[in-house]
Amino acid sequence: MALIVQKYGGTSVADASRILRVADRVAAARHAGNEVVVVVSAMGDSTDELLALASRVSPDPAPRELDMLLTAGERISMALLAMAIADRGATAKSFTGSQAGIITDTLHGRAKILDVRAGRISDALREGHVVIVAGFQGVSTDLDVTTLGRGGSDTTAVALAAALGAEVCEIYTDVDGVFTADPRLVPDARKLHVVSYEEMLEMAATGARVLMLRCVEYARRTGVRLHVRSSFSDAPGTWVLEEDERMEKAIISGVSYDTSEAKVTLVEVPDRPGVAARTMRLVADEGINVDMIVQNVSHHGTTDISFTVPKSDLARALRVLEQVRGEVGASGVSADGDIAKVSLVGAGMKSSPGVSATMFEALADAGINIEMISTSTIRISCVVRARDVAPAVRAIHERFKLSQEAEYRHEHPDGTAEIPVIPREVPT
Amino acid sequence: MALIVQKYGGTSVADASRILRVADRVAAARHAGNEVVVVVSAMGDSTDELLALASRVSPDPAPRELDMLLTAGERISMALLAMAIADRGATAKSFTGSQAGIITDTLHGRAKILDVRAGRISDALREGHVVIVAGFQGVSTDLDVTTLGRGGSDTTAVALAAALGAEVCEIYTDVDGVFTADPRLVPDARKLHVVSYEEMLEMAATGARVLMLRCVEYARRTGVRLHVRSSFSDAPGTWVLEEDERMEKAIISGVSYDTSEAKVTLVEVPDRPGVAARTMRLVADEGINVDMIVQNVSHHGTTDISFTVPKSDLARALRVLEQVRGEVGASGVSADGDIAKVSLVGAGMKSSPGVSATMFEALADAGINIEMISTSTIRISCVVRARDVAPAVRAIHERFKLSQEAEYRHEHPDGTAEIPVIPREVPT
Repeated sequence: MALIVQKYGGTSVADASRILRVADRVAAARHAGNEVVVVVSAMGDSTDELLALASRVSPDPAPRELDMLLTAGERISMALLAMAIADRGATAKSFTGSQAGIITDTLHGRAKILDVRAGRISDALREGHVVIVAGFQGVSTDLDVTTLGRGGSDTTAVALAAALGAEVCEIYTDVDGVFTADPRLVPDARKLHVVSYEEMLEMAATGARVLMLRCVEYARRTGVRLHVRSSFSDAPGTWVLEEDERMEKAIISGVSYDTSEAKVTLVEVPDRPGVAARTMRLVADEGINVDMIVQNVSHHGTTDISFTVPKSDLARALRVLEQVRGEVGASGVSADGDIAKVSLVGAGMKSSPGVSATMFEALADAGINIEMISTSTIRISCVVRARDVAPAVRAIHERFKLSQEAEYRHEHPDGTAEIPVIPREVPT
Repeated sequence: MALIVQKYGGTSVADASRILRVADRVAAARHAGNEVVVVVSAMGDSTDELLALASRVSPDPAPRELDMLLTAGERISMALLAMAIADRGATAKSFTGSQAGIITDTLHGRAKILDVRAGRISDALREGHVVIVAGFQGVSTDLDVTTLGRGGSDTTAVALAAALGAEVCEIYTDVDGVFTADPRLVPDARKLHVVSYEEMLEMAATGARVLMLRCVEYARRTGVRLHVRSSFSDAPGTWVLEEDERMEKAIISGVSYDTSEAKVTLVEVPDRPGVAARTMRLVADEGINVDMIVQNVSHHGTTDISFTVPKSDLARALRVLEQVRGEVGASGVSADGDIAKVSLVGAGMKSSPGVSATMFEALADAGINIEMISTSTIRISCVVRARDVAPAVRAIHERFKLSQEAEYRHEHPDGTAEIPVIPREVPT
């Protein structure tokens, strides 16, 4: 008997018939002898509907009250799911974030989980119930209701899996798992059987939407094994695990892309110590999330500093840069919203020096210009024109032959699922 | 500075524009220097929508989960109201039933309030906030979310008013107050300025829908002064008070009616001691709510026992009576769903022996047959044919000249509102 945490997103519980399908799946897991904790999001776009209601009564809703409002969404889906499970020969009890002991800080709208006091959950499991928990929400140290921000339900699921020592945290979604590239851009993209936490972090950070960064970070920190899979099929999805749970490493896991950012540039900045630091401090003080930063080599005593920011922060970033321009003495500020970032992620590239050269060649052969480059030990990102994003992803995917199955599987010792092992070599 | 509890029903917060209107009213009360606690119901028919959702996922939803589901409704309306108030120069904090310390027993769907631990509410008031509380809900001694059943939000408001020692509990609704008769039946029905708890109890019990019995009972027991008024106007409504808060008594307050009951009769029961007791014990054991009971005089050693039950309990009542028939030896069982109950309520009738005769004459002059009669010290109820209900109410209202203003007002000592005093005499 294993303890399993399952998380179902909004599309999986979008209407009554889908809730019944989820109930079937949960009941099957329970009848198979498992202890089951289910974390649910709000139904379909009900959260957006609540936000629209809020905007009709207030131009700038109080954050505490917005959290109170939004948490009604999971309350509805979880109660409905518990009712449906009760008709399938299992008993179920639903719990709000507060009842489930999800203790957070007091930052409404983007609270962080400080502690999980899962006593009531453990009691309910011991009494034989399937436990349904509202995702995305908690209770603050001030006893107010809080929400965890985007992707919060995934984080709730991982936090509960960690607190309860679950065998696996299954993230059910509307895709089959994590792919080597977005299948809408690359039709022969391949589903990955397994990726490491680090790879998944880089992919999430560079545009893969299947899991939020925060949830993957929490899983890595607590060692929770994730299984990302479709709520519409029984096929296994993608496991996210410690790297050393796999016997060998893939060189490349996949290609991700992100069109949500803009590039801003401070032009002809005096090239002297402290200027870059001062610039980024002022930007950081504004709470603007900076991603890639590139400073060109000095030319006639000045240099250009470029960085990418979310498009939603662009107006604020430009205001700050205008202020910085005066202070440090740059000649101008420019902005470019027409860019995309294409990233190649793979834990094996650490020890394969040819990877970045191969990636740049693939782009060059496709006639695509690279505007900015940044790298980590397991990722290479290039900024290109927005119109080039699809050909860029396809060219890289093709060059690294990512659609070819380069893995073999073995049976996982606990028998809960096949956990595949990544193979000896992938062409570079 | 007074502490005021205001309760707004579902129609008062049915959409964003109505919520803004309620926010205006609440903010005005706050800006006038009062401490304000607001109890809200769910928006419009959102509770019915949630019930419909539940019926789509389960034929017989688990009561605990149904309560979890339904309590989402007030969560939405209260958060929206708090946001809107914050835009009107006041600060507001919303609290669920659980956060507000509404402690109930464990009977899901019809929980009773056992205690009100209003510490957080008092703290928030002391900090200068308007406090918004979800009506209709609480938390059980088992820490599960419960609902209070029909009219539960009124009870929440009264319970909070009692716990906080509020000056008044204002019940805002979609009518102007309590009338001498249903204005849809009697166009010249008059709004009452004041009624006693006892009169209001009798009127609620006999079909007046403006306040639920339970809420009035709670108010009487705790001495909470109610003011029933419209959320669509500033006109004063109807006060519900201790009888001795008024200087003199009206003989008649109003005429109410109820078409939700059916009459059942056990025919030709042996007229011997214990038969009626045995009959009513079996009916009570089935949990059937019996209202009027009439036993005719004995005739050839047998009698008929008739009583009224809610139509929703009719099938069960007939099953019980069939069993009783065999046991006590009656000749048959009959049922009649085509009846109505018309009641005359007034604290002054205790000392006015002519009232019942006048009422019966009014019905007789209108050609209406009386099928059953029951009385209390301040109420007379007659069962008539269902088709006769409107003419019966009109005839009685006319005979007692209830549309004529027979009251005078004086200024209430606390200045919060004019509390009228009921007059010397009303014609019988």
